[in-house]
Amino acid sequence: MARAQFSAENSGGGAFVRQPNRFTGRVTPHSTSPEGGGPDDQGRWPLEAGRYRLIWCRACPWAHRARIVRGLLGLDEVISLGTVDPIRDERGWRFSLDQDGFDPVLGIGYLSDAYLATDPDYTGRVTVPALVDTLTGRVVTNDYPQLTLDLSTEWRRFHKPGAPDLYPVELRPEMDALMAEIHRDVNNGVYRCGFATSQEAYDEAYTALFARLDVLSGRLSGRRYLMGERITEADVRLFTTLVRFDVAYHGHFKCNRQKLTEMPVLWAYARDLFQTPGFGETVDFDHIKRHYYATHEMINPTRIVPLGPDLSGWTTPHGRG
Amino acid sequence: MARAQFSAENSGGGAFVRQPNRFTGRVTPHSTSPEGGGPDDQGRWPLEAGRYRLIWCRACPWAHRARIVRGLLGLDEVISLGTVDPIRDERGWRFSLDQDGFDPVLGIGYLSDAYLATDPDYTGRVTVPALVDTLTGRVVTNDYPQLTLDLSTEWRRFHKPGAPDLYPVELRPEMDALMAEIHRDVNNGVYRCGFATSQEAYDEAYTALFARLDVLSGRLSGRRYLMGERITEADVRLFTTLVRFDVAYHGHFKCNRQKLTEMPVLWAYARDLFQTPGFGETVDFDHIKRHYYATHEMINPTRIVPLGPDLSGWTTPHGRG
Repeated sequence: MARAQFSAENSGGGAFVRQPNRFTGRVTPHSTSPEGGGPDDQGRWPLEAGRYRLIWCRACPWAHRARIVRGLLGLDEVISLGTVDPIRDERGWRFSLDQDGFDPVLGIGYLSDAYLATDPDYTGRVTVPALVDTLTGRVVTNDYPQLTLDLSTEWRRFHKPGAPDLYPVELRPEMDALMAEIHRDVNNGVYRCGFATSQEAYDEAYTALFARLDVLSGRLSGRRYLMGERITEADVRLFTTLVRFDVAYHGHFKCNRQKLTEMPVLWAYARDLFQTPGFGETVDFDHIKRHYYATHEMINPTRIVPLGPDLSGWTTPHGRG
Repeated sequence: MARAQFSAENSGGGAFVRQPNRFTGRVTPHSTSPEGGGPDDQGRWPLEAGRYRLIWCRACPWAHRARIVRGLLGLDEVISLGTVDPIRDERGWRFSLDQDGFDPVLGIGYLSDAYLATDPDYTGRVTVPALVDTLTGRVVTNDYPQLTLDLSTEWRRFHKPGAPDLYPVELRPEMDALMAEIHRDVNNGVYRCGFATSQEAYDEAYTALFARLDVLSGRLSGRRYLMGERITEADVRLFTTLVRFDVAYHGHFKCNRQKLTEMPVLWAYARDLFQTPGFGETVDFDHIKRHYYATHEMINPTRIVPLGPDLSGWTTPHGRG
């Protein structure tokens, strides 16, 4: 996110309208390309361990999903990981956390280098997560919702023994509908609150956000996870927004009916996940805060990063399960 | 507050430095002027019922003090009240809540009219509260800390029977020191957080603010009010900041270690005062939110006013006393 959302990604009524994802290649065992080859005529890349690189930003909720799913499924040794700086400069996401400012595998200083290597005419926002082919330097996909589902389904050959099924076949119709509501009202809903440029657009987004959180709280008061007794992709998607709620969305995006810490069921649910292996250790509150507060000058012109909130509650007992 | 504080009222290091108060006249029985006369050679105006008019803004914590003290002492019929709009235009505080946009007693559309009638060369910020002489239209004082103390001491002749002593002689040394700390770290401290233009200035103000709130919380855990078992001016001064904490300072000024609702002793103390006659009925959360969020474009360029927080807790039992 940066300045663009206030112009190209804004409706006439002041509402934030997220751009579509540009690259929609998929890595799958069903590709007809040989090992080491490019995408087949249906955009399917061959499934190979060690070939693809996931580029993420610790601050970004969309990228965070992929980081968590990759870990839960045991794909850490199969798909390598590159991390961009939470603060972008005028050229966008940069590898300034790496030595000399270049990703050690891809050899690029900016994620935009990979985007332009793939599509020299690309003019949209450069986004994370991006799955990049290390052989050609091309972006396979920045289509984050499909990317994580593919990790669960297409990459099954490389899952660790006992890996959870995050997208069970029998649950998909209900899960897909639930995740669509969560996306619209919560995952993207917080951005619609924060990036609104009219009071009306903000009011609408805020109302939908908290109405949805109330529904989810009711659902989670009777079950440990969104789909029952097992963690699924739906939990991952809700978690990456909840874990950012008090440090970024509550103040910076004006999502302030309550803090997460003031919504007892959701707060306990989020702590439960945070304390589950594969979740909490991927959270970097410092990167999250610095990214949001230092990036959106149309919301926070001083770029001052709040010292709060107190985060000590995240490791307290959650009483669920 | 408006744009000025980011230039004239800013130190080289990005810290907010509040301007001094321009008009420091005092209404007192010790004036040597006759009834209907102007200030004597020591700036003392004659004490008269029905002559002076208190101009306040419901949003402003400094003005809110005077409104509360006037009520607690029973001076409502003695000093009349004019209310400016929470939203200023380019000419400043305006009487747009009144019919035709003019204060019905003073006959002016802007508070600046009274300032300039008193000092044609005045170029500072026009502030509330202001005590205005209705005979001449001149500003007697905008010196808010002295104004409220004078209501307690100089206006005693007009107090209602049984009015509280908000500034007891025997407590003054301790009270003065306490109120100075509260002013520096809390009353003005929240502004120093919000108006900081450097991370360092913000960090310093935030740290001092919450350290002081911790001290005050400790003090109030052993006594109902700051000075013991009776309400004093010190409570009024702390209250007007606390009542704005979650609706304005927590998000807008980045005072976000905790919300007031997450600081149990201070939250119960604030509710106790809110539910005390003379306090809660003078609070206008809508004016407060609209004023802060719509006024400071250097902090909130979109001027969108948050729908939160949920305020239902203010009327819940406080368990003190």
